[in-house]
Amino acid sequence: MTLGKEIDGKAFAAGLRGRIADIVPGFVAQKGRKPGLAVVLVGEDPASSVYVRSKGKATVEVGMESLEFKRPAMISQEELIELVEELNADDSVDGILVQLPLPKHLDDAAVIATIDPAKDVDGFHVVNAGKLAVGDPTALVPCTPLGCLMLLKDELGDLSGKEAVVIGRSNIVGKPMAQLLLGESCTVTIAHSRTHDIASVVHRADIVVAAVGRPEMVKGSWIKPGATVIDVGINRVPAEEEGKTKIVGDVATAEAINHVAAITPVPGGVGPMTIAVLLRNTLVAAHVRAGLPVPEGL
Amino acid sequence: MTLGKEIDGKAFAAGLRGRIADIVPGFVAQKGRKPGLAVVLVGEDPASSVYVRSKGKATVEVGMESLEFKRPAMISQEELIELVEELNADDSVDGILVQLPLPKHLDDAAVIATIDPAKDVDGFHVVNAGKLAVGDPTALVPCTPLGCLMLLKDELGDLSGKEAVVIGRSNIVGKPMAQLLLGESCTVTIAHSRTHDIASVVHRADIVVAAVGRPEMVKGSWIKPGATVIDVGINRVPAEEEGKTKIVGDVATAEAINHVAAITPVPGGVGPMTIAVLLRNTLVAAHVRAGLPVPEGL
Ligand SMILES: NC(=O)c1ccc[n+]([C@@H]2O[C@H](COP(=O)([O-])OP(=O)(O)OC[C@H]3O[C@@H](n4cnc5c(N)ncnc54)[C@H](OP(=O)(O)O)[C@@H]3O)[C@@H](O)[C@H]2O)c1
Ligand SMILES: NC(=O)c1ccc[n+]([C@@H]2O[C@H](COP(=O)([O-])OP(=O)(O)OC[C@H]3O[C@@H](n4cnc5c(N)ncnc54)[C@H](OP(=O)(O)O)[C@@H]3O)[C@@H](O)[C@H]2O)c1
Repeated sequence: MTLGKEIDGKAFAAGLRGRIADIVPGFVAQKGRKPGLAVVLVGEDPASSVYVRSKGKATVEVGMESLEFKRPAMISQEELIELVEELNADDSVDGILVQLPLPKHLDDAAVIATIDPAKDVDGFHVVNAGKLAVGDPTALVPCTPLGCLMLLKDELGDLSGKEAVVIGRSNIVGKPMAQLLLGESCTVTIAHSRTHDIASVVHRADIVVAAVGRPEMVKGSWIKPGATVIDVGINRVPAEEEGKTKIVGDVATAEAINHVAAITPVPGGVGPMTIAVLLRNTLVAAHVRAGLPVPEGL
Repeated sequence: MTLGKEIDGKAFAAGLRGRIADIVPGFVAQKGRKPGLAVVLVGEDPASSVYVRSKGKATVEVGMESLEFKRPAMISQEELIELVEELNADDSVDGILVQLPLPKHLDDAAVIATIDPAKDVDGFHVVNAGKLAVGDPTALVPCTPLGCLMLLKDELGDLSGKEAVVIGRSNIVGKPMAQLLLGESCTVTIAHSRTHDIASVVHRADIVVAAVGRPEMVKGSWIKPGATVIDVGINRVPAEEEGKTKIVGDVATAEAINHVAAITPVPGGVGPMTIAVLLRNTLVAAHVRAGLPVPEGL
């Protein structure tokens, strides 16, 4: 029994951010402006505020322009849509991200539908979902599953013909993940809460992607020896020390680590990829909008 | 060994056309016009001409308006797009279908992208592909896979938790079929030409949908006893009688019939569903465009 490799998402994300930082100056030289990412934050949710701050910081660090639009929780649907329309019309804005979830009186779907698909760097607009579904390479793809795919390709090379099982079918992780793996010619199965005998479904897989949101639900014994595992889950659970909490994934890593080929740790696996891919999507959108070819290495 | 049931797609399609014919007069009474389907045929391809004629005939038979737009093979891309735009603007047109494939100098994708998604009764527009992908119930869904789903639900009732394997990943059959089955909470696997050991992948399935285009490729032994099989394939092969041809599916039905629960024959299974669902999509589009609720039973 050899200990499986831990896939270092933090290092990979740092490398991706480095490649982005190397490409930005060329864009600035050609267009006379920085690629710009606009992040819209409605209300005072502390978690959302932290995310938005991290995104802004990361954007500036790679040399791009970060624009933050904070609006009070009681903003009306009309005012929010007007803001998105202004950002659509602003040529210096290449990417628009509306931090979700929005306060309850606002309609997430209607707001997302207003974003210009060419600036939809979260990949949540129905046009980008459709492009991903039909295999159109101009799709802007949701950041977390695209980050997972990058880690898998980095680890395994060609994925063609591999059996992949995705656990979870959300529109932001599970479904786009399955479509990306199908695009790489995996034989793809999607499992979810209605799946019977999920242990044996997972046991078929050369590649397991767990995106469930249930702490350590995927047991070590479910995973075929030699499989590669991507653990998307971020679950806060009580820590050993009383009164403290810690973050665990959807996979019981301590059980699986002895027989997997490789697995992403939580934290430090998929987590750091999401923001790096957001920057990548923004830089891609900037090039496409400017009529420039998308640089290699993104 | 009991002989599996043959699923009578012809009868089901006739029933669906009957329900459509029953609903049309109510629409006419409320709106003062018939639901209208515009079919655009470019060039003289004999197979396409036959399809377009059948579609027109079926449209009229259920009491809807059929509009045929025949254009010469040498029509320019601009002229064809102009025609589609005119049909988009014409309020009496509820559905627009551009018969594919188009002559080589024309860009299928660009023409389809011009169709108003609300009139895209083939379900090929990227907005409808996206709506299907994210589970938006207002999606107009490609006719053949939606017809397959109707047959499956009629045969099996609730599909939740069943293992489904779709063979084929085209944008018009395999992929939308997989998404529909996922929407019904099947555990869905998509197999294709890069799948390893496809026999054992297929053998897992309670539901097999074969959409490959290879005569009798799916052997009887691949299919788990008691499974339900939808054979989408339409393949012309030499018949026993010299110089004649016949149509066979993608499944070796003679081998499978002894142990399946049910299977669609070719011809007479999926084939007749496609046009009936086209009429259904047109009637749904007519109601949605008119701001009327979609009637039950479609
Ligand atoms: N940056 C990141 O690393 C990142 C980004 C996004 C999400 N996440 C994390 O990833 C996880 C999933 O996120 P999400 O947004 O996709 O969650 P979600 O929308 O809640 O979807 C969860 C999926 O898991 C399925 N599921 C629930 N219980 C299950 C069970 N017992 N067995 C099998 N499947 C089950 C659900 O099936 P049904 O559809 O049948 O209900 C659903 O499809 C969460 O922990 C989230 O925090 C991390
Ligand atoms: N009204 C109807 O009944 C109706 C409507 C539409 C189509 N059809 C019929 O359905 C069939 C499929 O149509 P389509 O448009 O989806 O065809 P298509 O675009 O040619 O796609 C065929 C699919 O089959 C896969 N495939 C090819 N060889 C395979 C093999 N040896 N093992 C496993 N998979 C294989 C291909 O995989 P790759 O992606 O890896 O190449 C591809 O995804 C055809 O016979 C067509 O005539 C019938």
